[in-house]
Amino acid sequence: MDEGVNFYRRVGLKIMIEGIAASSGIAIAKAYQLVTPELTYEKKSIDDPASEVKRLDDALAIAKQELEKIREHTKKEMGDEHAEIFSAHLLVLDDPELINPIKDKINNDHVMAEAALEETTNMFIDMFKNMDNAYMRERAADIQDVTKRVLAHLLGVTFPNPALIDEEVVVIAGDLTPSDTAQLNREFVQGFATDVGGRTSHSAIMARSLEIPAVVGTKEVTDSVKQNDTVIVDGLEGKVIVNPSKEELNAYKEKQANFEKQKEEWAKLKDEPTITADEEQVELAANIGTPDDVDGVLDNGGEGIGLYRTEFLYMGKNQLPSEEEQYKAYKTVLEKMGDKPVVVRTLDIGGDKELSYLDLPDELNPFLGFRAIRFCLENEHIFRTQLRALLRASVHGNLKIMFPMIATLDEFRQAKAILTDEKQKLKDEGTDFADGIEVGIMVEIPSTAVTAKQFAKEVDFFSIGTNDLIQYTMAADRMNEQVSYLYQPYHPAILSLVSNVIDAAHSENKWVGMCGEMAGDTIAIPALLGLGLDEFSMSATSILPARTQIRGLSKEKMASFKEKLLTMSTTEEVVEFIKEKTE
Amino acid sequence: MDEGVNFYRRVGLKIMIEGIAASSGIAIAKAYQLVTPELTYEKKSIDDPASEVKRLDDALAIAKQELEKIREHTKKEMGDEHAEIFSAHLLVLDDPELINPIKDKINNDHVMAEAALEETTNMFIDMFKNMDNAYMRERAADIQDVTKRVLAHLLGVTFPNPALIDEEVVVIAGDLTPSDTAQLNREFVQGFATDVGGRTSHSAIMARSLEIPAVVGTKEVTDSVKQNDTVIVDGLEGKVIVNPSKEELNAYKEKQANFEKQKEEWAKLKDEPTITADEEQVELAANIGTPDDVDGVLDNGGEGIGLYRTEFLYMGKNQLPSEEEQYKAYKTVLEKMGDKPVVVRTLDIGGDKELSYLDLPDELNPFLGFRAIRFCLENEHIFRTQLRALLRASVHGNLKIMFPMIATLDEFRQAKAILTDEKQKLKDEGTDFADGIEVGIMVEIPSTAVTAKQFAKEVDFFSIGTNDLIQYTMAADRMNEQVSYLYQPYHPAILSLVSNVIDAAHSENKWVGMCGEMAGDTIAIPALLGLGLDEFSMSATSILPARTQIRGLSKEKMASFKEKLLTMSTTEEVVEFIKEKTE
Repeated sequence: MDEGVNFYRRVGLKIMIEGIAASSGIAIAKAYQLVTPELTYEKKSIDDPASEVKRLDDALAIAKQELEKIREHTKKEMGDEHAEIFSAHLLVLDDPELINPIKDKINNDHVMAEAALEETTNMFIDMFKNMDNAYMRERAADIQDVTKRVLAHLLGVTFPNPALIDEEVVVIAGDLTPSDTAQLNREFVQGFATDVGGRTSHSAIMARSLEIPAVVGTKEVTDSVKQNDTVIVDGLEGKVIVNPSKEELNAYKEKQANFEKQKEEWAKLKDEPTITADEEQVELAANIGTPDDVDGVLDNGGEGIGLYRTEFLYMGKNQLPSEEEQYKAYKTVLEKMGDKPVVVRTLDIGGDKELSYLDLPDELNPFLGFRAIRFCLENEHIFRTQLRALLRASVHGNLKIMFPMIATLDEFRQAKAILTDEKQKLKDEGTDFADGIEVGIMVEIPSTAVTAKQFAKEVDFFSIGTNDLIQYTMAADRMNEQVSYLYQPYHPAILSLVSNVIDAAHSENKWVGMCGEMAGDTIAIPALLGLGLDEFSMSATSILPARTQIRGLSKEKMASFKEKLLTMSTTEEVVEFIKEKTE
Repeated sequence: MDEGVNFYRRVGLKIMIEGIAASSGIAIAKAYQLVTPELTYEKKSIDDPASEVKRLDDALAIAKQELEKIREHTKKEMGDEHAEIFSAHLLVLDDPELINPIKDKINNDHVMAEAALEETTNMFIDMFKNMDNAYMRERAADIQDVTKRVLAHLLGVTFPNPALIDEEVVVIAGDLTPSDTAQLNREFVQGFATDVGGRTSHSAIMARSLEIPAVVGTKEVTDSVKQNDTVIVDGLEGKVIVNPSKEELNAYKEKQANFEKQKEEWAKLKDEPTITADEEQVELAANIGTPDDVDGVLDNGGEGIGLYRTEFLYMGKNQLPSEEEQYKAYKTVLEKMGDKPVVVRTLDIGGDKELSYLDLPDELNPFLGFRAIRFCLENEHIFRTQLRALLRASVHGNLKIMFPMIATLDEFRQAKAILTDEKQKLKDEGTDFADGIEVGIMVEIPSTAVTAKQFAKEVDFFSIGTNDLIQYTMAADRMNEQVSYLYQPYHPAILSLVSNVIDAAHSENKWVGMCGEMAGDTIAIPALLGLGLDEFSMSATSILPARTQIRGLSKEKMASFKEKLLTMSTTEEVVEFIKEKTE
């Protein structure tokens, strides 16, 4: 917290923090700091071991109560599998082989409970960590988590329990990891504000999927906001206001009401087709992460699901999801969507997405590493289980299967051969699956965009994943602030690659979607329309604004600018030109 | 070391290890293990502190002697600046504030010298490391290095001193870092064999530049070879033979002689132009790292320098090189090359190349991070010093300046504006520089290859850096073994981008070079000739074989295959086709 902020707080002035608008809308609520507290203490020897053991027992008891509540909540909200991790934590707290040595240490060495706890658990953690066994390393992580919780109670500091939130709050965090958001009690979370991240970070995507306002990349919100401060999150302009004045509060309440009104306007287009001013039709689909997101898609007039990220099935738990568990999830989504297309992306793990129970390698450049289809082709049993679950679910709706991170035609052919093989096995077993399931690929690696013509002969469709395509094409990690200026969706190089993919697909009568953030962007939409994109897949909440925009655009006019856009020199020129032509 | 190797060693059989042929030729010599020895010991208390202090003093004295020798050697071979680091190490050994506490610990706590040394230095290292100051962190690194050396002498194990090698050896190492190779006594090193790396790793490039045989990526050579084993490095076929039989030794001596004869054949073309069978001329240039490499370029018939990597001026020392130091290096290279073109690449630091004295950020994906021109545009003083040195040196030869890692035209314009500004300053000062220095860019980022047409209007030349271009285009870290199968130079996507760059340049009458490893590859050369590449820049030792190959090829015939090559589906098809057409 810098001096200025301290000063403002002392004199009771409000604080305005700027960030990146990541999910639209206005949230007003109390701050909930999702930050692990400082768990340091001064090591002292103690005189009364009995009362020290009592302190430990009390802390253990509170931790146990909390974990039981969290387990119940998780079970209810997310199912048994996700709740398992908390059962594992509870087992740790009940394990006499761990707890007794701590008490012995207190009794024999007159060590304070905090130190006895930490020294004992560290010994176990080190031991388990060094075992060449993923299961034991997982146990080490469990002990570490539990130790922190008990230590917090010994020190009398609050340990955040996002699952136990039971009043309306705005979550303030350094960043939100997938496992944080898996625990959040979504009913009460009104908005997010984070220190790090951009429009394409996990927390931003999650906020849009939950339809709650969010501001990310503020750099300082965790330092500037205290627990229970009143906070306004302005997801329209990317601002966070801490302890606003009465006037500000009123102004923002009005802004909130206006935004609701605007949403009502958009909602009128919910069941309308997406047709341009010159009567050309395109499809507006949504990106989802879990079956829970489907209602939001339908409420927002989604005409399909352009990207179902299946990673969430694999995250926040202790083991791989079973075929049955996956089948149920896919079936739910397909049934809810009815005839509407559902494009399911097979597992995209690795890169910045790790699974603790899989022994993924540490990599120097994970974004250029062993992930997605590269991982699946080397771990066929995992891939085959997913494909079986998908094929079995296919009878319940309009499924399309999509492989991520395809760089070469070889990889596509291998993946498709495995799919064909699983089809044959199901046939032999007498298990039904849909006829003619389309099989496509993500275009997110430059090589694939460049050789789209070769791919178009063999795939049924493309979906351009701009988040990755942009970072590889510009050779700039979009999470790295020092080079994020190079994350330029409107750069002529990106538009050229997109155009090449669309032309290649259309020459083989295949369709092209886009499921990166760019597909829902108001500057990009006119350009993409002109390049001939068939399907735009975006956050559900962006669909109705996009439909509104597209109904006002002429596809033919936009197409006439194609040559000009592709030969421009800089992103700035492109933006200026599009703005001028769509005014 | 696995059981098989142990078994072979026990029964006295030779061991053959396979790896990647990284630099051609045959080396036969004793093994020199460049591996930090195990520095572990069992901590014991001691009875006789006086003799323990004596042990410490002895170890300090040997370390001091060694460091003095290394400093002298480095000074002689590489100049004062590079020797500074060893002066810093010597200062550490003479510092009573560090040495006295170690002795106190021995005398007061009856701790053995090893533990007293480590515990004391660790305290200082931690303290310095945690300071927010690059200079102090550098001191921490010095203390760490010196501690290891003294500890090795206390434990009676050999600490490798590459600078002190004084007999013919083959260096065996896990990997060779730039700072390792900077210390090597090049006179005596006959070959390299390493556990990790590929054809484009630093150790491979260095071996080719030193013209010594090398095999990299063996995975096991450090485990399978003992100090002083007789070792054959077969850099033609990528094999390492340990303790060969007499027959094998003779066979390899003959192979070595044949290779020398072959080299003599090649040498006849040293002063011949590089002309195809249908009388088209191209330029064969060399990639160099230091002025010392220029003699090798001229000896191998290089017609220019297509890539002078200036990073080495910045590495293996304690501070940035001065303008004067740089000027001297550039002048030396330019003068030696005379009229021949010398393309100097401005500083490409970051990624996998760090400078300890600069506070570069830790990055999650350094290859997609803050490096090269991105770093220079943010650290203008460093960039300007280099440009001034280059401009001043330009009067001594045929200089061309090249900016690395250009992703957008904006970046090129910014870099060029700084160059223009420095020209004006020199003019105002009355300092001479050459007229009409060509200013070009590396094409190593897909966005730049895709929008080459826009760049071609503003740059004077392109040089395609395939090592990076391939890894970004395929989204695969070439150093990561699990995805290295995607490092496919002949992939149609790479050929298409290369072709696009060449066509764009020629339409504006600009020339295109290539300075990645691909330029010297026997499969790639026919394809590149057909695509119209003007300059091929490679390891000096590849020039004469390349000239031999090109004199046997028809450019027109290769050009007729262009369309076909660019529309092929896989790398395998391309390779097969080229082999068939060039048989």
